[in-house]
Amino acid sequence: MFQKVLIANRGEIAVRIIQACRDLGIISVAVYSEADREALHAQIADEAVCIGPARAADSYLNMDNIISAALASGCQAIHPGFGFLSENPDFAERITQAGLAFIGPTAATIRLMGDKSEAKRNAIAAGVPVALGTDGPLRDFDEAISEAERIGYPVMLKAASGGGGKGIRVAESVKDLKDAYDSASAEAIANFGDGRLYMEKYIHNPRHIEVQILGDNYGNVVHLFERECSVQRRHQKLIEESPSAFVTPELREKMTSAAVALAKRVGYRNAGTIEFLVDNDRNFYFCEMNTRIQVEHPVTEEVTGVDLVCEQLRVAAGEPLSFKQEDLTIRGHAIECRINAEDPSRNFAPCPGTLVSLHLPGGPGVRVDSAAYQGYKIPPFYDSMIGKLIVYGADREQAIVRMRRALAEMLFEGVVTATDYQMHILCSKAFVEANFNVNSIANGDFD
Amino acid sequence: MFQKVLIANRGEIAVRIIQACRDLGIISVAVYSEADREALHAQIADEAVCIGPARAADSYLNMDNIISAALASGCQAIHPGFGFLSENPDFAERITQAGLAFIGPTAATIRLMGDKSEAKRNAIAAGVPVALGTDGPLRDFDEAISEAERIGYPVMLKAASGGGGKGIRVAESVKDLKDAYDSASAEAIANFGDGRLYMEKYIHNPRHIEVQILGDNYGNVVHLFERECSVQRRHQKLIEESPSAFVTPELREKMTSAAVALAKRVGYRNAGTIEFLVDNDRNFYFCEMNTRIQVEHPVTEEVTGVDLVCEQLRVAAGEPLSFKQEDLTIRGHAIECRINAEDPSRNFAPCPGTLVSLHLPGGPGVRVDSAAYQGYKIPPFYDSMIGKLIVYGADREQAIVRMRRALAEMLFEGVVTATDYQMHILCSKAFVEANFNVNSIANGDFD
Repeated sequence: MFQKVLIANRGEIAVRIIQACRDLGIISVAVYSEADREALHAQIADEAVCIGPARAADSYLNMDNIISAALASGCQAIHPGFGFLSENPDFAERITQAGLAFIGPTAATIRLMGDKSEAKRNAIAAGVPVALGTDGPLRDFDEAISEAERIGYPVMLKAASGGGGKGIRVAESVKDLKDAYDSASAEAIANFGDGRLYMEKYIHNPRHIEVQILGDNYGNVVHLFERECSVQRRHQKLIEESPSAFVTPELREKMTSAAVALAKRVGYRNAGTIEFLVDNDRNFYFCEMNTRIQVEHPVTEEVTGVDLVCEQLRVAAGEPLSFKQEDLTIRGHAIECRINAEDPSRNFAPCPGTLVSLHLPGGPGVRVDSAAYQGYKIPPFYDSMIGKLIVYGADREQAIVRMRRALAEMLFEGVVTATDYQMHILCSKAFVEANFNVNSIANGDFD
Repeated sequence: MFQKVLIANRGEIAVRIIQACRDLGIISVAVYSEADREALHAQIADEAVCIGPARAADSYLNMDNIISAALASGCQAIHPGFGFLSENPDFAERITQAGLAFIGPTAATIRLMGDKSEAKRNAIAAGVPVALGTDGPLRDFDEAISEAERIGYPVMLKAASGGGGKGIRVAESVKDLKDAYDSASAEAIANFGDGRLYMEKYIHNPRHIEVQILGDNYGNVVHLFERECSVQRRHQKLIEESPSAFVTPELREKMTSAAVALAKRVGYRNAGTIEFLVDNDRNFYFCEMNTRIQVEHPVTEEVTGVDLVCEQLRVAAGEPLSFKQEDLTIRGHAIECRINAEDPSRNFAPCPGTLVSLHLPGGPGVRVDSAAYQGYKIPPFYDSMIGKLIVYGADREQAIVRMRRALAEMLFEGVVTATDYQMHILCSKAFVEANFNVNSIANGDFD
């Protein structure tokens, strides 16, 4: 096992990785930007290294500084967390070249699955259903017109190098297509430096359901069932659950088998997630693969009992998976609410500020993964997520009741959060009846 | 089910009961003393009523004020928590006479099991092993001499109305007996207003292992396995676990059967705990019954999945138990560390103060039951316990690792706690090998 690991991230996921390191007896090295001197991850890690100014490009995205910090502090491996450099194949490659282990899949796998068209081609080859769409990126707008004609409206345009809901537009008919094409392309260039788009059939009010995968270096791949992530605003998840109340045992079997087949085809190592869109008739379509740990991984941990971050560290250190598929079962139900410093009444705009007063909920079934502390000044430079509230219950009903209780108990004074809005969703008929899809917030289904 | 319940307690157990009420859709009414205006339980309850000055006798022990508050606020029931009036049969009786439900066993059962001699007589009648001892309270010191002769030294003197480790002395030989008798009797008078003592054979370095019981109003009684509570200082528990690593399946079967037999014999309703001393040869002896919820109940909740406080409310409202003995199993391992504002280096003397800075641990497997918040001024009038840290793991090894991680992450600035000492115990060979007994702290077994 590694003796010392550097965590190339910040916020609650950095705290989470430090916890996993501690459970395995690994010394943790945090990195922090100048704006994050007082951040919790920098305070609780065994060691902490400043890697540059506040701007992410100068610190959390600065490969040179991060790799130097890892080498200088005597680490054997780097955990990228999520976001930042976690799905950058060059980062994985450079880490390996520096003689360190990258805690994630190989650079080649990241590169392959990071290209939406390549990923889709592999899904088809693995027998995984995909929505009708272009074979690769569109050459130009003229091709967009002809492809939309072939696929049939409504169509969706998606950034070839995209993620996090950026660079996505829907065109209901040919007259929407030009605007959709231009704005998706512009957003893709702004966010990923790559304006290429591909197109696929738009699925009406789908659910976003994803399958957790874990692979070792010896060809063993298991799935850890599904997560229901349809409660989204602006293509960003707000509430996640495991299992999905919409997934039948038959659908679960099909989706998880498909996910494992795709992961095996691409020789997947470490933790990954295969995202599907599921229509109302329970047809599912491969969407994309995230080649890293997900924000919502705790709901899977709660219902399977597997510590996913510890497993990431173990398999990256060369250990074979310590369990088989048949050892895994879903037990109970878990729900996660992201705690974001953002204002639902202003279209979820980020609202950084100082946590004047903080109370985190406790009691049975409540888990808190957080980077918050009373007095913490949330810097305006990074993602608005400051923590996650996770509850576990014997069934979905108990999990809902416990989440409502925990949300009611929680206090974040000084910053605006989406907590009241999440409570509103958890009390809605649509949520209680598990009758929602990715457009439910936009469509007012929870009101 | 009740619509409104008054919680006749303070601190973390009051918070815990408020949480259970919320899970069941019950309106919670907290009571607080003048010293507890800023206490968390008074802040997070749906309603809160001041019941008198700081001194417990004037507030948390003031039956008139508590029952008036319950009636005035329209409650149907009172939950006594632990300590204070929880094992006072007069309180239970007066609540019932006021037309309210007491969330606990009947006054008659409390009275019966509160008398150590009566409890022992019932244990014998139920076929539960008891240590050789007096049949009832000693009449005088002369009887103490003759009984000690009959039982054989070493003998233990215990207050007939005692609890919480008060009024207990050991005499190794006849020359210790007078001092032991006088000081136990004086302590018993000071603490319980009843100087009567009984005597039993002193068991050398026993383990304290207890069985959780739950009964409804229809004669159904189940056990929820055992808790290992041997890590004690001054007869007060410091670290608890479930299951006990010392208990074999055979011993578990015998102890739990004995506990259920005794509970059934006395017509036990609601949650209760039957405490045993277990010697090194795994002989067990009935010690006492606690006719209330215990501080350490969360470890049982974690390994059985049963919310004990919710079950207390349900059975008190007349619901039959919703599960049978065969539905219950132990899954994984849980450990609890009490968070006490006390100084281990000054023989665990209480150290109230202001929580200048607070950080509670989180992450997988960590549960916090707490009455603490940053800025909280711990009043000097009450018990030193301000919270409990509970961890769950797939096995004892994982639970230990997670507890160490959680203790390391936890920060209480401004008050002295036993946290560092608990960490020391958790890292000791004796604890890791589960090789300890009730005298291990005093004997330095963890050093």
